[in-house]
Amino acid sequence: MSSTARLASPVDALLAALADDMDRVGTLIRERMASEHAPRIPEVTAHLVEAGGKRLRPLLTLAAARLCGYQGDHHHRLAATVEFIHTATLLHDDVVDESRRRRGRPTANLLWDNKSSVLVGDYLFARAFQLMVETGSLRVLDILADASAVIAEGEVLQLTVAANLDIDEATYLQVVRGKTAALFAAACEVGGVIAGAPEPQVAALRTYGDALGIAFQITDDLLDYGGLATALGKNVGDDFRERKITLPVLRAVAAADATERAFWTRTIAGGDQRPGDLDEALCLMRRHGALEATHAAAEAHAARARAALGALPGHPLRAHLEGLVDFVVSRVA
Amino acid sequence: MSSTARLASPVDALLAALADDMDRVGTLIRERMASEHAPRIPEVTAHLVEAGGKRLRPLLTLAAARLCGYQGDHHHRLAATVEFIHTATLLHDDVVDESRRRRGRPTANLLWDNKSSVLVGDYLFARAFQLMVETGSLRVLDILADASAVIAEGEVLQLTVAANLDIDEATYLQVVRGKTAALFAAACEVGGVIAGAPEPQVAALRTYGDALGIAFQITDDLLDYGGLATALGKNVGDDFRERKITLPVLRAVAAADATERAFWTRTIAGGDQRPGDLDEALCLMRRHGALEATHAAAEAHAARARAALGALPGHPLRAHLEGLVDFVVSRVA
Repeated sequence: MSSTARLASPVDALLAALADDMDRVGTLIRERMASEHAPRIPEVTAHLVEAGGKRLRPLLTLAAARLCGYQGDHHHRLAATVEFIHTATLLHDDVVDESRRRRGRPTANLLWDNKSSVLVGDYLFARAFQLMVETGSLRVLDILADASAVIAEGEVLQLTVAANLDIDEATYLQVVRGKTAALFAAACEVGGVIAGAPEPQVAALRTYGDALGIAFQITDDLLDYGGLATALGKNVGDDFRERKITLPVLRAVAAADATERAFWTRTIAGGDQRPGDLDEALCLMRRHGALEATHAAAEAHAARARAALGALPGHPLRAHLEGLVDFVVSRVA
Repeated sequence: MSSTARLASPVDALLAALADDMDRVGTLIRERMASEHAPRIPEVTAHLVEAGGKRLRPLLTLAAARLCGYQGDHHHRLAATVEFIHTATLLHDDVVDESRRRRGRPTANLLWDNKSSVLVGDYLFARAFQLMVETGSLRVLDILADASAVIAEGEVLQLTVAANLDIDEATYLQVVRGKTAALFAAACEVGGVIAGAPEPQVAALRTYGDALGIAFQITDDLLDYGGLATALGKNVGDDFRERKITLPVLRAVAAADATERAFWTRTIAGGDQRPGDLDEALCLMRRHGALEATHAAAEAHAARARAALGALPGHPLRAHLEGLVDFVVSRVA
C-alpha cells in the first residue's frame, strides 16, 4: 500500500539516524541468542528475529539514551534486552493464541512445536535478564522487572476477560498496557536512566513511551476493523472472529440498543457468528461513531506523547520521536 | 511406604529448624502471587503451591543464609524467588510434557489450559525477578540470571536430544544441571552471598547445591526404573515410555551387544514399544549393572556434596544439610 510506504518513513528515518547503534545491537542479539548446548534455540530465534519486525522497541531505547547525551555502550545491551523480552512474549503469545502466521512467515509453534516456543521464549527472557544485569544498574533492573510483571499480568487478564462484554475501559487499558505500552514505556525510561538524565527527563521519557504504546495499540485495534477507511484490508475482522474485546467493540456496545446488544451478545459473548456478522458489526460501529471515537482516543494519547517530548533536550532525535507519534496514529486512513 | 516416611525426616528436620523463616516465606509467596487485575493468576499458582511440594529449594536458601550467620530478612525474598522460579518452570514443563498429574493433582494445563500455564509461569518469573531486585544485590541477580539461562537451555537441550541414543554423558549431565542442579546451586549460593559470607564458603555452598542437585536428579532417573529394589513402584517406566535418555539407559546402551542395541534402537530411538518391553529393558539394565552404576554415579556426587560442607561453619544446620544428602541418594532401595 502506498500509505504504508509513505508512513513508514519516520521509522526509517530513526533507523538511519541510529544505524551504527542498531548494527551493534544486531551483533549483540546474534551473539546472545546463540547457545553452546542447544542449537534449536538460535534456529527458532533467528526465524523470528530475521523475519524483521519493526524493531521499534530497541530504537526507542537507543534514541532515549542518545537524546539524553549518553556516550557509553550499555544502551546497546538494553536495546537488545527489550528486543529479547519482546521476542520472548511473541513466542509465548503465538502458543497462547494458537497463531499460524507472524511477520509474514509460519509461526515457530507451527514450524517446530509449542514446546520449543515456550522454552526458547524462556531462554530469551533469561538472556535478557543477563544482559540487563551487565549494565550494573539496579534501577534499570527494577524498571524492567516491573514491566515484565505488567506484561504477564496483562496477558493473563486478556485471557480471562475474553468475550466479556461487561468489562470497562480501564480494564481494556490495563490489557493494552500489558500488551504494548509497558515495554514501550520501559524501553524509553531505561534509555534515560542509563544516560543519567535528570528525573524530569526520565519521567517524560516514560510518559512518552506509555502514551505512544497506548496510541499504537488502540490504532492496531482500530485497524483490525479497517480503520477509518471504507475499503477493507485483508486482515480485517481477526479480533471479531477471536471475540476480543477492544475499544471499537466497547464503544459500539456502550451505545447499543436492546437489539444491537443482542447482536453483540450472540456474536462476541456467545461466539455464534454467521456470514454477514462482520459487516453488521462494522455497520453498528459506524452508526454510533465507534471507529471515530476509537481514533480520537488514540489521538488523545498521541497528544500526551507529543507533550511529554517538550521536557526533553532540543536534540535532532526529538523530531524523529515526534514523527513516530504521527506515524503511529496516522495508519488509519 | 515406610521407607519414604523414614527417609523424609531430614527434610522435616530442616523444616522444623527453619519453621519461623519458612512461615515468613509462605506469607511472602501468598502476597506476591496475588494479582490486582487478574484473579486467574493466584488461582493457578495456589493450585500448585498449596499442593505442597517439598519446598527443598527455599529451604536450601534459608539454611545457607542462616548457616553463614545472616541476620537480615532478604533471605526470605530469595527463598520466595527460587520457589517462584521453580513453580514457573513446573508450569511450563507440564505444557511441554503434556503432563496430566503433578503432586498428586491434575495439572494446571488440564484444569485450566495451556495458555494459563504459560502466562502464569511468565508472571511468576517476573514476580521472582521483582523480589530479587528488592534485595539490591547485583551479585544475587547475576547468579539467578545465569541459573535461569542454564535452566531454559537445559530444557531445550532435553527436547532436542530426546530419543537420541548417541548422546554422551556430558550432554546428559548438562540436561540434569538445567532440570535440577542449576537452581539448587543458585539457591545455596545466593544464601551465602546475601549473608556476606567469605568467598570459600560461597563457593562451597554452590558446589554443595550443584552436587546435591545432580545426585537428586540421577536418583530420580534411577527410581523411574524402580531403583535398586526388585519390586516395581507404580510410576516405574514413565521415562522409558517417553523415550527419555537417562543414565540407566546410557549405561545399558554403552554395554549393549548388537541384539541389545537393536532393542534400544527400536524402543527408544524408534518409539516402537510392545508389551513386555519395559521388563526387557529392566532385564538388560540388570544384566550390565546399569542400575548399580547409576546409583554409584549419584553416590559420587553425594560424596562431593558432603565434602563441600567441610568448608562451612560448624553450625547445627550443617548436620541437616548433610542429612539431606543421605536422604536424596538413599531413596533407591
